[in-house]
Formats: sequence, structure tokens, C-alpha cells
Amino acid sequence: MNDFMRLAIESARQGVRDNDGGPFGACLVRGGEMVIVEHNTVLRDQDPTAHAEVNAIRAACRKLGTFSLGDCELYTTAEPCPMCLAAIYWSRLARVHIGVSRDVAAQFGFDDARFYIELRLPLEERAIPFTKDAMREECHDVFRYWKNLNRPLY
Amino acid sequence: MNDFMRLAIESARQGVRDNDGGPFGACLVRGGEMVIVEHNTVLRDQDPTAHAEVNAIRAACRKLGTFSLGDCELYTTAEPCPMCLAAIYWSRLARVHIGVSRDVAAQFGFDDARFYIELRLPLEERAIPFTKDAMREECHDVFRYWKNLNRPLY
Repeated sequence: MNDFMRLAIESARQGVRDNDGGPFGACLVRGGEMVIVEHNTVLRDQDPTAHAEVNAIRAACRKLGTFSLGDCELYTTAEPCPMCLAAIYWSRLARVHIGVSRDVAAQFGFDDARFYIELRLPLEERAIPFTKDAMREECHDVFRYWKNLNRPLY
Repeated sequence: MNDFMRLAIESARQGVRDNDGGPFGACLVRGGEMVIVEHNTVLRDQDPTAHAEVNAIRAACRKLGTFSLGDCELYTTAEPCPMCLAAIYWSRLARVHIGVSRDVAAQFGFDDARFYIELRLPLEERAIPFTKDAMREECHDVFRYWKNLNRPLY
């Protein structure tokens, strides 16, 4: 187990050294074998979604030819932010091993813990203004169209 | 305003027609001009993170050459799931316009609302098992390394 976390840590350090992004690494494992190891590349890729966990999930799906990782585990050097946590749920990972908590990331200035609080708030109390019910009926119709075509859930 | 939501809806319908993924579209706007319109491509790209909002944010950042969209607004046909919502925070969007709520997505079988509940739970009560404090000190050291190199926050 520590071998996989060690790979995640090494990748995180390499990412910091190369100024690819924040100090975060993740290693994705299937059946006791490493599938992929990634780190945060927000700066390198100019992509705010390029966190270590999202990068690992995306790369593993490409490599394994699936969008569902139900037989995989993830080792991540820090507690996933809400974006990465929900990506973990969408990809149906079986288990997640975490290094430090969201509080450590917060101590170093990252917004993960703050965003967890924002996500609990009703739309009208959030830091970013949200408008709802814009063309609601037309948006609802797209769901009905999808349902009528009998498209798959995922 | 409705013009941008209409573009998002058309893209969502096109995505359903082509079986690219779920019935979701998003249009990203800067200074009253459309930057990009995207839809959910989870099935087409075999990528569980390829939701409409994430696709729009990533494509807009590529197009504008930045990882920060503080002067942009997003029109999305359905309330963002927690992954997309946190991506909206990370990309610092100025405003978000939503079509239908998470409850409509839930009625059609999507897990967005359920994942909002999961994200509030302590690690030990979640549907996916989480192990914490794996090599915590070594993970913490990566943050110190990052701090010592005076790397930027984002």
C-alpha cells in the first residue's frame, strides 16, 4: 500500500519542482497493480480542473477504455477537494487512501475546505451569484428527449 | 441572456442525439460574447469528468489561454453537480445561470443530488470507503517543499 502512496508523493514533488501546479499527487491502482500516477498540472496545462485525482481518473479511463473504475483504488497525497471527490463518485472507485486532510491544504492557502462550505449553502447565499430557472421548461424538455430515446444512465 | 441558454440547450440536444452522454449543455460567455458551448461527452470520450460545465471550462481556458475565468459567466441547462460546482469555484467564474434544479436530474436517475449528500458526510460514513493519514508526514513534506520554493497559489 505504501508503495502506491510513495509513487503519488514522488509525482507530487516532481510536479512542484517543474512548477506544473500545486503539491498534490495521485496513484490509481487495479488488482494490486499501478495503472497510472499523476500530479496537479493546473499551471502547466492552464486548466483549473487538472487536479491530481481528476488527471489520474481521466488518464486511467483512457488507458483502460472505460468510464467506470469500480475495480480500482486511488491513493492521493491530500484529501480530495469537492471537485475531485465528486469525480471519484462519478467514476465509481472502490476505495480511496488519503495522505493529509483538507485542513493541511487550507493551512497552505488552498481553497478546498472553503469550497466544501460553499457547496452546502443554498444558491442565494453563495460567494458566486447563481440565477435559477432560466428557460426551465426548455431545459426540462432535453431530459424528456433523452428519456424517450432510451439513452443509458452512467 | 436567453440566447446563451438556447445555445446550451441546442448543444445538449445534439449530444443526446449523437449519444455523446447525458442531457446537459453549457455555454460560457465573456463580455456579452459566446466563448464556447459544450455538452456532456462522458460516453463519447469514456471520461466520467466530461460533464458539460467541465468541458466548457476546460475548452474556454484553452481558448483564452488562462486558468482563471473571473470575467466570464456560465449558462448551464441543469444545476451543476458537486464536481462541476467546485470546478466553477476553482475557475473563479463571475456568475452562473441555471436551467433546471438538481431534483430534475435526480428524477431522471442521475446521482447529482445523492452526491451532494455524500459530500457532507464525514469520511467514515460515506458510501465509498476512505482511509486517512496514509504516509501523512511525507505528504505534508510536499506542501513544505512547495512553500519553500515560493510557488504560486491559484
